[in-house]
Amino acid sequence: MRAPRVGFIGLGAMGMGMARNLHAAGWLSIVWNRTRERAVALAGELGVAVAHEPTALARAAECIVTSVSRDADLAAVVEALLPGLIPGTVVCDTSTVGADTARAWSRRLAERGAHFLDCPVSGGAEGARTGRLAMMVGGEAEVLEQVRGPLSAMAATIVHMGPSGSGQATKAVNQIMAAGIAEAVTEALAFGVLMGLPMDKVIEVVSQGAAANWFLSHRGRSMLEDLFVPGFKVSLHHKDLLICREMAAAAGGMGLPVVEMTLGDYGRLMDEGHGEEDISALIRIKRAPEGQLI
Amino acid sequence: MRAPRVGFIGLGAMGMGMARNLHAAGWLSIVWNRTRERAVALAGELGVAVAHEPTALARAAECIVTSVSRDADLAAVVEALLPGLIPGTVVCDTSTVGADTARAWSRRLAERGAHFLDCPVSGGAEGARTGRLAMMVGGEAEVLEQVRGPLSAMAATIVHMGPSGSGQATKAVNQIMAAGIAEAVTEALAFGVLMGLPMDKVIEVVSQGAAANWFLSHRGRSMLEDLFVPGFKVSLHHKDLLICREMAAAAGGMGLPVVEMTLGDYGRLMDEGHGEEDISALIRIKRAPEGQLI
Repeated sequence: MRAPRVGFIGLGAMGMGMARNLHAAGWLSIVWNRTRERAVALAGELGVAVAHEPTALARAAECIVTSVSRDADLAAVVEALLPGLIPGTVVCDTSTVGADTARAWSRRLAERGAHFLDCPVSGGAEGARTGRLAMMVGGEAEVLEQVRGPLSAMAATIVHMGPSGSGQATKAVNQIMAAGIAEAVTEALAFGVLMGLPMDKVIEVVSQGAAANWFLSHRGRSMLEDLFVPGFKVSLHHKDLLICREMAAAAGGMGLPVVEMTLGDYGRLMDEGHGEEDISALIRIKRAPEGQLI
Repeated sequence: MRAPRVGFIGLGAMGMGMARNLHAAGWLSIVWNRTRERAVALAGELGVAVAHEPTALARAAECIVTSVSRDADLAAVVEALLPGLIPGTVVCDTSTVGADTARAWSRRLAERGAHFLDCPVSGGAEGARTGRLAMMVGGEAEVLEQVRGPLSAMAATIVHMGPSGSGQATKAVNQIMAAGIAEAVTEALAFGVLMGLPMDKVIEVVSQGAAANWFLSHRGRSMLEDLFVPGFKVSLHHKDLLICREMAAAAGGMGLPVVEMTLGDYGRLMDEGHGEEDISALIRIKRAPEGQLI
């Protein structure tokens, strides 16, 4: 297969960075976005085409990368792509959706002679911007090899997890871990504030020991300054954790107390109007009463 | 002050590594351990002296490093050192004890013209072995500078946190974070097992994204092989979390739901005979029923 022309759909906080990196590596040929202005602006800047509708993008690309927020958004986008899909086209969905959703789209595209890979990513908006995402891929290994070039422009780590859906199942593992880490880091830093410690130094030294983690290094300082610009939104992580809960139930059930704690806390943040903030806003409800912002 | 002769007390999982690194850097002159055989064996191997009692060690060292498990052990050791302490001696306690305990010993030693620094560490047995610990120091900054040489043989990161007790308060932050991370990683990996994922690949890819953390990288594979050699013991982390709970209450109170969840889980592990295992044994009680070991 010759180098595929790549179309990109979904220019949000993650998608914008990924599309820019695809362009920088010479892959990007056409974009589409639900809010058209964002697509027009980026296309003008980069000198690539804007599709008037997903069907047109489908006709112009052999590899289509999607980055949307929810199962329903993915459904709308892929339904709209279908009439234009050329047999052999590979749709790489970097969104976080259910493993069942990924498997269903994989079957649906196979009926048209096209391929679907679930390619969810982790690494935050900064990972998308720097092209250093970690990507967990479900689907056929040979199909992954066909699009490894463009995917490598977005992700520093690409791991084939197994058949369709296994990328999303791995992302669910990632999201459970990220939830518990957010609970841990916000509770620990709120405790440090209560102790009156110099928090910059706390982050400096704790980051070098056995509690070291990405979230502390990337969100520790900003959360202590009450800056909760996403990053990763509370409402989206809440949605992901509901998917995890459903997947566990469908697999016969296991207790997920960390997930349940985080869902409760995110629900409270959303009720109080903080759903569009970064998940580090969890520190709002961890703080001792006198320091509490809410 | 000329280069201080260093005495080391407490040759456990952490202390043994730290003492070896002090020796390798030319600082170690004398050791003492409650279980005398361990001290005799190490001293024979390294060619350093063994003190018959802590008093003798106090008379032979200007810098004394202690590494014990509990407040009561520290009390016994420092009480035993007191009669031999030379004015100007610096006791560097790398144990994890309460901030109040550290402050009390600092006052007590000051009455004798000696100094006490709380120098708790993080980085696990591997950090102790490699001399790459993170050390959080409470006490007078000038006193820390007097012993920075020997401390640097054990720790790659040394941060002065503030007055006496602030090293221990920082360690409490670290231990709360480590608890929540252990809950998060074990729950997420148990979920991945339930999903039937190839877990080596899960660890590989998740370690490169926004859920990356020390505990996953250092304990992920071993816990999936049911290997729970400490590392860091459940019973000791349980003790540390009780200290955190007391410190929060003494400071006017704040909710610590992550700490309470972990205390409950550790309590169950201890009841079931797993208190001397590594804290990654938490995965025992996270597993879905059919995969459960207990």
